[in-house]
Amino acid sequence: DGPLAVIAGLNVLEDVGLALEVGSELKRICSDLGLPYVFKASFDKANRSSITSYRGPGLDKGLGMLARVKSELGVPICTDVHEANQSERVAEIADLVQLPAFLCRQTDLVVAMAEATQAAGGLLHVKKAQFLAPRDVKNIISKVGEVAPDLGVIMCERGTSFGYNNLIVDMLGIGAMHDLDVPVTIDATHAVQLPGADPRTAGASTGGRREGVPIIAKSAVAAGADGVFLEFHTDPDAALCDAPSCLPLTGAADLLKTLKLIRELVTTG
Amino acid sequence: DGPLAVIAGLNVLEDVGLALEVGSELKRICSDLGLPYVFKASFDKANRSSITSYRGPGLDKGLGMLARVKSELGVPICTDVHEANQSERVAEIADLVQLPAFLCRQTDLVVAMAEATQAAGGLLHVKKAQFLAPRDVKNIISKVGEVAPDLGVIMCERGTSFGYNNLIVDMLGIGAMHDLDVPVTIDATHAVQLPGADPRTAGASTGGRREGVPIIAKSAVAAGADGVFLEFHTDPDAALCDAPSCLPLTGAADLLKTLKLIRELVTTG
Amino acid sequence: DGPLAVIAGLNVLEDVGLALEVGSELKRICSDLGLPYVFKASFDKANRSSITSYRGPGLDKGLGMLARVKSELGVPICTDVHEANQSERVAEIADLVQLPAFLCRQTDLVVAMAEATQAAGGLLHVKKAQFLAPRDVKNIISKVGEVAPDLGVIMCERGTSFGYNNLIVDMLGIGAMHDLDVPVTIDATHAVQLPGADPRTAGASTGGRREGVPIIAKSAVAAGADGVFLEFHTDPDAALCDAPSCLPLTGAADLLKTLKLIRELVTTG
Amino acid sequence: DGPLAVIAGLNVLEDVGLALEVGSELKRICSDLGLPYVFKASFDKANRSSITSYRGPGLDKGLGMLARVKSELGVPICTDVHEANQSERVAEIADLVQLPAFLCRQTDLVVAMAEATQAAGGLLHVKKAQFLAPRDVKNIISKVGEVAPDLGVIMCERGTSFGYNNLIVDMLGIGAMHDLDVPVTIDATHAVQLPGADPRTAGASTGGRREGVPIIAKSAVAAGADGVFLEFHTDPDAALCDAPSCLPLTGAADLLKTLKLIRELVTTG
Repeated sequence: DGPLAVIAGLNVLEDVGLALEVGSELKRICSDLGLPYVFKASFDKANRSSITSYRGPGLDKGLGMLARVKSELGVPICTDVHEANQSERVAEIADLVQLPAFLCRQTDLVVAMAEATQAAGGLLHVKKAQFLAPRDVKNIISKVGEVAPDLGVIMCERGTSFGYNNLIVDMLGIGAMHDLDVPVTIDATHAVQLPGADPRTAGASTGGRREGVPIIAKSAVAAGADGVFLEFHTDPDAALCDAPSCLPLTGAADLLKTLKLIRELVTTG
Repeated sequence: DGPLAVIAGLNVLEDVGLALEVGSELKRICSDLGLPYVFKASFDKANRSSITSYRGPGLDKGLGMLARVKSELGVPICTDVHEANQSERVAEIADLVQLPAFLCRQTDLVVAMAEATQAAGGLLHVKKAQFLAPRDVKNIISKVGEVAPDLGVIMCERGTSFGYNNLIVDMLGIGAMHDLDVPVTIDATHAVQLPGADPRTAGASTGGRREGVPIIAKSAVAAGADGVFLEFHTDPDAALCDAPSCLPLTGAADLLKTLKLIRELVTTG
Repeated sequence: DGPLAVIAGLNVLEDVGLALEVGSELKRICSDLGLPYVFKASFDKANRSSITSYRGPGLDKGLGMLARVKSELGVPICTDVHEANQSERVAEIADLVQLPAFLCRQTDLVVAMAEATQAAGGLLHVKKAQFLAPRDVKNIISKVGEVAPDLGVIMCERGTSFGYNNLIVDMLGIGAMHDLDVPVTIDATHAVQLPGADPRTAGASTGGRREGVPIIAKSAVAAGADGVFLEFHTDPDAALCDAPSCLPLTGAADLLKTLKLIRELVTTG
Repeated sequence: DGPLAVIAGLNVLEDVGLALEVGSELKRICSDLGLPYVFKASFDKANRSSITSYRGPGLDKGLGMLARVKSELGVPICTDVHEANQSERVAEIADLVQLPAFLCRQTDLVVAMAEATQAAGGLLHVKKAQFLAPRDVKNIISKVGEVAPDLGVIMCERGTSFGYNNLIVDMLGIGAMHDLDVPVTIDATHAVQLPGADPRTAGASTGGRREGVPIIAKSAVAAGADGVFLEFHTDPDAALCDAPSCLPLTGAADLLKTLKLIRELVTTG
């Protein structure tokens, strides 16, 4: 029932200047609002629809950029791991080590990430797969518990398959995951994706509904989410990945203030 | 962007004393909160899973009970119509004449209800079917507009089919219906039903998740719903219909206060 | 495990000449193949997307046309009922009295149809709603059994809601309904509809995938369906209702022959 | 339009004796029926619900067992790859190198497998993810085509997410994938899984509906599938992985004969 946690930043690292600009602005907003803040950006987008999509700077360069954001801004970092052998290096930098949704049932990856994250003193942020029922994340939590019993796990709702080319967020799923004694965050950015349906590329990348992001965020916080995961850009339409669901940085202060107030309402009610 | 409308009362009419007790308490709470209030109860449950389920007092007796609630409490009334030939009699009493979800595409019923409701000066409250996409309610609105161009229509979200024996609420659907220039309400009570899955009766009636009702209500108001539809009882487990999703009347004041505050937050934000 | 039953004809009655032409050709084909044949056509389309859609000749004129098909061709008739008070008149003419999918849980309609059909010596053909799990049709069968214990009921699969604007056929549902000791038919024509998605009318009528009809029919017969429900036209694109899912009459003989052979394979196997 | 391809064997390698027994029996049956046969077994189950589930003999021992089946029985081999760095070793033994459903959008894995399989002269067997629309597999095919333009790709339907804890097979998806000019197989064994719902382990492993396997196989072949993927065991209830959806080897001859005849019917029809 603490304050709303904010995991926010870029979809994917572009250049370090953008990362610092977005991170410092979000840090300032969260500081003003009294909300804990974690900077998020991916160094690699390993599951793009097309082979020609922008993938990011990669592990070496990307971790260097994240380390610089961490030290210059003094903020914790969230980034995702795609292969078991990346776990230790990522856990050195990231405070919130993120397991991608499509990969959340790959045992070797879960085990490697859990061990590395516990050793480094971080937390595990698990995106619930689009094909998984909320209560079934108990199997992931159990896997983690067996190899890293002291590791904190946070579950993240990012939408569930609903027919073809659509995701839907089950607000009752937040409570179903809370019942497993883990904090729950809402990834409102990915939850509005329209898989395989970006009309700008005839389906070669994933579409989105940018105007839906604040709605899903507000709804989920009202439903009890403990944190919110959001992706911003100074020029959303020019974002190199997932532009259709990217929010303008200029709107961050208003949205986060509203979310903070909803959180207070539903936790003190 | 006005205050949150509250359509609330009983699932189905039982005896008039209960209706007056529930209606007067909800009227008092809404009055204290400055929220417009409409008393809701059905006189017939025409689509029960089993032929032996309680169906209510029927048209004659039920309209009499609703008329008494209306005059004694001085509150507007919402109730539903199941056959075209009931439209005129219902529209005489009900201020909000409700089209059931399963029937929302039956043209003759829509036309009869629209004509009778416009003539009587009421509004039409349309439950979006579980099998209908939010944007496709435009066809219902068009049908109404052709025969009753001055009639106000309110769309109600009550959950969408999600696999078997489950409903899910698409919070982005509220905005999709707003785009059609109609107010949108959330029926949080029916939205938590588990169709055909009440374990107490081995599937012969519909189950529900009572604890989910406030979550769906808060989420939907945060997402922009203009009104909330809720069913209460003084003894929910003893409710003669849909007990598993019925809320205790004792919790109404706290829930409605929270919903009012969320509404204010998201409309002034 | 008998021969495949064929319920086939027109979506909606247009003129009697067309009904006789389609019915006589289908009768001839089924006779050649040794398959029992029932002529199907609706006299009213009561649930159109738009108020301006063609609805058919109506009850009086429509039943007259069906009576003429019945007597001139000597074939049994299948047509649907939309309101309880139509039941007796329809049951006088129709041998297979059909309950529409959206209405399959309306108790008064089910009861009236069951009583009238039993009295007239017909059978009840129940379209499983798009929002209903296969095993939950047991509640419909129970309702019928309580008022018409000697009435034969046939369940018809016509697709299940799958996200928005799409239907999907669960081939395992055929067995789930067989487990309730009723014959099961496949309505391959309606199963390929794309609700609310006919691009020719910007969503004001329902789209379809004509090329999918034979696929669904073959699949379902392979999965154990005892009968097939199909709609034809001499000029499918000119059909006054549901043209996108209408088959050309010229293809009927080949399709029915293939279905007959699949049926023989899976029942003798 | 050639004969039905049969990819069949074990879910996971147990001991080499079982693999040889199952493989030789299936080879014999397919030879009698004139059907091309590929032996399938996994060396590792990398995405189990629980960390304590049996995972198989692993890469080294497993490839040794598969090599022995290949040489002793003279049959081609199908097995799956879970990490990019396994690709070359697997492609040396396997003729049909299989990409798992959950991983089908992981670009590095797709690229590594495509390159290794083309180099080794094999074919790629891609399981369509449960969260992917059939037409969207074009992005996977494009990725493969860019790095391995001469590599043959076969798409495999294994069910699509349908609500929680359920899969459904869209028979129209087979044609949608055929439209991309690739052969399509049906994995009838995994298609009947009930994810996260094995009542024997309270959700710690995945349930299934063994009796549904032949139904899905027959339906899909009737719908146009070019090949069938099936898992057998001499003692299905004792299978170390996915027992609820495993078929008895004793039923293989009858089922494959029926499938062969359906294939002939629909390709000559």
